[in-house]
Amino acid sequence: MDRQNLTLLTDLYELTMMQGYFKNKSQNETVIFDVFYRSNPSDGGYAVMAGLEQVIQYIKELHFSQEDIDYLAGLSIFQQDFLDYLEDFKFTGDIYAIPEGTVVFPREPLVKVIAPIMQAQLVETAILNIINHQSLIATKAARVCYAARGDGIMEFGLRRAQGPDAGVYGARAAMIGGCVATSNVLCGQLFNVPVKGTHAHSWIMSFPDEYTAFKTYAEMYPSACILLVDTYDTLKSGVPNAIRVFKEMRKAGVPFSYYGIRLDSGDLAYLSKKARKMLDEAGFPDAVISASNDLDEFLIDSLKVQGASITSWGVGTSLITSKDCPAFGGVYKLSAIKDKDGTFIPKIKLSENTEKVTNPGNKKIYRVYEKESGKIKADLICLMEEHFDEEESLLLFDPLEPWKKTRLSGGSYTLREIMAPIFLGGECCYESPKVMDIRAYCQTELDTLWDETRRLINPHKVYVDLSKKLYDIKIDLLDRMSQS
Amino acid sequence: MDRQNLTLLTDLYELTMMQGYFKNKSQNETVIFDVFYRSNPSDGGYAVMAGLEQVIQYIKELHFSQEDIDYLAGLSIFQQDFLDYLEDFKFTGDIYAIPEGTVVFPREPLVKVIAPIMQAQLVETAILNIINHQSLIATKAARVCYAARGDGIMEFGLRRAQGPDAGVYGARAAMIGGCVATSNVLCGQLFNVPVKGTHAHSWIMSFPDEYTAFKTYAEMYPSACILLVDTYDTLKSGVPNAIRVFKEMRKAGVPFSYYGIRLDSGDLAYLSKKARKMLDEAGFPDAVISASNDLDEFLIDSLKVQGASITSWGVGTSLITSKDCPAFGGVYKLSAIKDKDGTFIPKIKLSENTEKVTNPGNKKIYRVYEKESGKIKADLICLMEEHFDEEESLLLFDPLEPWKKTRLSGGSYTLREIMAPIFLGGECCYESPKVMDIRAYCQTELDTLWDETRRLINPHKVYVDLSKKLYDIKIDLLDRMSQS
Repeated sequence: MDRQNLTLLTDLYELTMMQGYFKNKSQNETVIFDVFYRSNPSDGGYAVMAGLEQVIQYIKELHFSQEDIDYLAGLSIFQQDFLDYLEDFKFTGDIYAIPEGTVVFPREPLVKVIAPIMQAQLVETAILNIINHQSLIATKAARVCYAARGDGIMEFGLRRAQGPDAGVYGARAAMIGGCVATSNVLCGQLFNVPVKGTHAHSWIMSFPDEYTAFKTYAEMYPSACILLVDTYDTLKSGVPNAIRVFKEMRKAGVPFSYYGIRLDSGDLAYLSKKARKMLDEAGFPDAVISASNDLDEFLIDSLKVQGASITSWGVGTSLITSKDCPAFGGVYKLSAIKDKDGTFIPKIKLSENTEKVTNPGNKKIYRVYEKESGKIKADLICLMEEHFDEEESLLLFDPLEPWKKTRLSGGSYTLREIMAPIFLGGECCYESPKVMDIRAYCQTELDTLWDETRRLINPHKVYVDLSKKLYDIKIDLLDRMSQS
Repeated sequence: MDRQNLTLLTDLYELTMMQGYFKNKSQNETVIFDVFYRSNPSDGGYAVMAGLEQVIQYIKELHFSQEDIDYLAGLSIFQQDFLDYLEDFKFTGDIYAIPEGTVVFPREPLVKVIAPIMQAQLVETAILNIINHQSLIATKAARVCYAARGDGIMEFGLRRAQGPDAGVYGARAAMIGGCVATSNVLCGQLFNVPVKGTHAHSWIMSFPDEYTAFKTYAEMYPSACILLVDTYDTLKSGVPNAIRVFKEMRKAGVPFSYYGIRLDSGDLAYLSKKARKMLDEAGFPDAVISASNDLDEFLIDSLKVQGASITSWGVGTSLITSKDCPAFGGVYKLSAIKDKDGTFIPKIKLSENTEKVTNPGNKKIYRVYEKESGKIKADLICLMEEHFDEEESLLLFDPLEPWKKTRLSGGSYTLREIMAPIFLGGECCYESPKVMDIRAYCQTELDTLWDETRRLINPHKVYVDLSKKLYDIKIDLLDRMSQS
């Protein structure tokens, strides 16, 4: 399971196409590919961008080792001149992207790759793999945290993650989306994020009785002592034994900083209320009640509505796999080809489904905020050369239903360009923030969403509009294609 | 994204428990943990075991580097004597497992770890992560291949996999489950499995017209020439242009070994039948029609029932994420503790849910085959010391519903023990077969299932029974616990 360089983490067709371009396009034209997605995971109102740091690392390390070239030679598909070319291959293009932790919406470019077509084609698969995975889990985490109404969510899913990377980078993304800690020690080591955890049922079972197991644990870890109370019987054995241990610790003068119980089975609403009452009556009103057991945003929301006495949540499978929606549908589409004069010629991919028609050209994105509230009004995709004056009125219209128009008066809105240059001429010009800083930025980003967009069911859609100029180019291309 | 050693790929609580054992259990008792799962993925009738090769590699490489120990020291949870102990830590226990590619059923041990409790506890998370992931995808692949009724399934999911490992090890598992190839080049390199792929829509869009794109591709790759025909209009443009190119290639005397078209959108039943007719009438009856586009076992089954003219299938998201069921619920439960005399004392975990009560003791599994058909009658879990004589009659009864009994007469059945020793005394004693050999073994394994067990909906359940001796121990433990 040694990590190779990830250059061969690609679909074979990227390499067969590369050889095709190598043999047939002496100029190896510069092209633009956009990464975008078409609908939010879990029928939500937004997604959270994540994975850029790993994309940057992948691009930086991109090269074909001799071992890679020997392997490709052995497939009997590739010719010697192309294999020789791969020996010196490196990425020399530009990449623009929306920073990690930013809230994003369907059909806007999350990443834009501008490079000779052989390079731009090769990197498709890995970029999609990384961005699709981490954005999926960051989005799910933001949903789960929203349901918990400010309670801490701990990421506990490593054992059910789809392989080691899914556990480690999934936990990274879960932290970006708002989790307060992960159980994943390797993620903690790699990304300097808080790690948490106490003990399992096996700890209890390996002692002669539950009380001795609790007592031993509490003496070892008085400053973070959450006791798992459901091994035998939560209310008849677990909670009374925990209270007995807490009393003995208090009597012995052990300083308690963070202590309480964890429920991992049964009716969490009922058990948490009963346990709260027992703890309060025993003189432990600050004992934490945490819960786990196949939780997701909807179960947590329901438990909060029922008034469950739980303030800390461990979420495993549903978060680390995004169980109800385990794939983020990011795609990578050609949007322009540079001609001999150095001008980008916009390209469009047709589809019978209007939503699947791509947006052509070399684009950027302005986020439009309502000045008064700081909340997002819409995103506006336009051409690179376009500029807007916040003092002038701004016309927004839905490109899918262009009769839906809104005019914002000058001074009532602010604009922010949300893509940043990441690589220019093959050189990285962007430093990834630390994960906990991305997490803090993501919290401010989520605050720019209206609550109607964050809600779990039937959220309000944020409009992603095209500038008039971009819209006209798109319609013109469509007209020309339908005439041909 | 450098691969570290995976020793810290664990939940923090494994380490806090380890320190607890280190401080409080001078003898560090030898214990047994079983990996098992409770229900088949996707409501199926079976699962396919996978991931053992990566578990072996993980155990072999298990050690705490100085960097790991420094990191743990920085958490201010672990004491110096424990950290010193970790410096020389290695796995010294025994591991038994069911070989990869074997069909398996709920509640039977897939992996059994016998080791001092500190070691056995540490390895829980990574073993579950690896086995849960790969068994999930191997099982899904077997289902998808079953639906395709002998047609080849290509694994195309890398861009939607949950991170790089999920793509690479997921593709490995998909090959074990029956896929004929993967698009994932890194998986091909690491595991020497066939890689396939042709071109994307962007190839077509980067040429002035579809015909030129096809022609260029066919000249490059005459021996594996599958043309993607849906970029503009499948029946009006794509198929006619493909036929034109095939005719020109034939006229030029180019030897065709494998050629045809790929459909990636639209009504695949309708389009494939129309395309088949067009290809046949043009003199290309051996042109392959392959299809992709969010396929899964149910869509493929439906297309086969509709008589779609498709004989090769590319399956992406639904396979690589096991979309309808993205987690395999493997758990790791304590089943025995060795006492001072060296005898294993069986342990049981109670639950209000009968199915969640564990099976105690040091166990092995016999697979019981009907002699005449070679099909599986049942699995029989028993104690290590038990032996059965195939010439004598065998009583099988369901441990959950013990009144359901079957008696097999002597000579009518055969037995096969299905767990193998993998590590003994910390030394690996098992050599993993090559992936393509595991795949071939898995095909013979799937043949031991009745078709009623393989069907996609409402399959017949295979019984996993306990020996009389094991059942009596379990009932005795339950009786004693309910009296205490």
